[in-house]
Amino acid sequence: MIIIKVGGGKAINWDYLAEDLSSINEKYIIVHGANAFMKEISNKLGITQNLITSPSGHISRYTDAKTLELLTMVYCGLVNKKIVSCLQKHKINAVGLSGADGKLWLGIKKETILSKVGTKTKIITDSLTGKVESVNVELISMLLDKNYTPVITIPAITKDGELINVDNDRAVSVMAKDLQVKTLVFLFEESGLLEKFNDPTSKIDRINKDDLEKYLESSEGRMKKKLLGVKEAFAFGVKSVYFGDGRIEKPVSQALKGNGTVIN
Amino acid sequence: MIIIKVGGGKAINWDYLAEDLSSINEKYIIVHGANAFMKEISNKLGITQNLITSPSGHISRYTDAKTLELLTMVYCGLVNKKIVSCLQKHKINAVGLSGADGKLWLGIKKETILSKVGTKTKIITDSLTGKVESVNVELISMLLDKNYTPVITIPAITKDGELINVDNDRAVSVMAKDLQVKTLVFLFEESGLLEKFNDPTSKIDRINKDDLEKYLESSEGRMKKKLLGVKEAFAFGVKSVYFGDGRIEKPVSQALKGNGTVIN
Repeated sequence: MIIIKVGGGKAINWDYLAEDLSSINEKYIIVHGANAFMKEISNKLGITQNLITSPSGHISRYTDAKTLELLTMVYCGLVNKKIVSCLQKHKINAVGLSGADGKLWLGIKKETILSKVGTKTKIITDSLTGKVESVNVELISMLLDKNYTPVITIPAITKDGELINVDNDRAVSVMAKDLQVKTLVFLFEESGLLEKFNDPTSKIDRINKDDLEKYLESSEGRMKKKLLGVKEAFAFGVKSVYFGDGRIEKPVSQALKGNGTVIN
Repeated sequence: MIIIKVGGGKAINWDYLAEDLSSINEKYIIVHGANAFMKEISNKLGITQNLITSPSGHISRYTDAKTLELLTMVYCGLVNKKIVSCLQKHKINAVGLSGADGKLWLGIKKETILSKVGTKTKIITDSLTGKVESVNVELISMLLDKNYTPVITIPAITKDGELINVDNDRAVSVMAKDLQVKTLVFLFEESGLLEKFNDPTSKIDRINKDDLEKYLESSEGRMKKKLLGVKEAFAFGVKSVYFGDGRIEKPVSQALKGNGTVIN
């Protein structure tokens, strides 16, 4: 089984991806983002998206109740159902789910979050964020057994039924653990992991998993989080991770052939 | 098995509903609307919601591509996940799905729609609306067998993977047919079917199903459509339909006791 995580950029070509999926001879699960659409709709609704920088330098979305509502609209509504429709057009029997449905992604909420503002550290107590701790293996297996393709996105849910924002990339590593998945594919709007930010000629072809820490230190923003998820995934038993370009034809096949960045 | 259709008004009390559901000794499926939220979000986004009056007097939403996107955001995103979260808080293992997921509600698109504007009749060709023709019984049964509660809403999907807006109430009657359901409960923001519009004292306690045509003629707007769905449901083998108040404690139990309007 493969987990395919697809970024939330507008240049991702879902038709190419759907065409390619019919050539994949394994079961697969799709996890997707929706960041570009989130920005667009929040601007239209006049909801300011605030970011938090943790003391260790991680940047994440400040998720208050309004932002969480917006997130369910954009991730579970607009984008998830666009993807389901596209996959169905290509004869893939997709079922779109959030991490909340059937407690698919069961998580815990962070009671407090530290936010670095200049030289000061603020304590935030109303952020509806957390992390996924376990996955509903029964529900996913049941769908896969009957040839449905799960298409999953945030939010996750706590045992008390509260919706929480989590990091999709890190949720993927918990899924890999619980479902004993050995292969992960991450598609985004780059040809692979770039040595130099925004320089497509600096693509790294291969990374030894033992060197991930080095790349983690030098990476920034969303890529840092992606690599953190990848590092966790290896600790959870994943054998190979493929980064690839979600804008090109046959994106999964190309990534699996090693035409993006291979980490193993 | 019971299908419980819950209206999309803001006064529906989902906590009361969820508490009540634990007392129901049968399997059930929930279908929900989101009309009030749709109005609110479309106003905020500056998307005008146009209505179409058919030559026979039925009023429906004019669903162009923009409206369909908004509809997925509000119905499948915001409201569906709010409901899933509420049910999960009450220990009901809800799984939120749209009619598009796993082709749950497979429908056909209307190629043209007639719209009465004053004395003229306009032909509309870009409306993404249609009707549900069949239901994915396998997917629903699979979920119910494992004690998941399906929470379903629009849109439906065509065999070609196109999302279409359909009438939730009429989709309920097709579900009743395919799943051989004999009992339907409709909860909304009234105490039952009212003889006089907006007059709560005029609640009708019981309607003979053979008299439905009479009530159809005298009803208007959304209630007319609801009664049309009910009429179809009886033709499809349903035995009893209960209209009840979605704002009160124990709304399903109260409706089943006959405290709203019973049609049989």
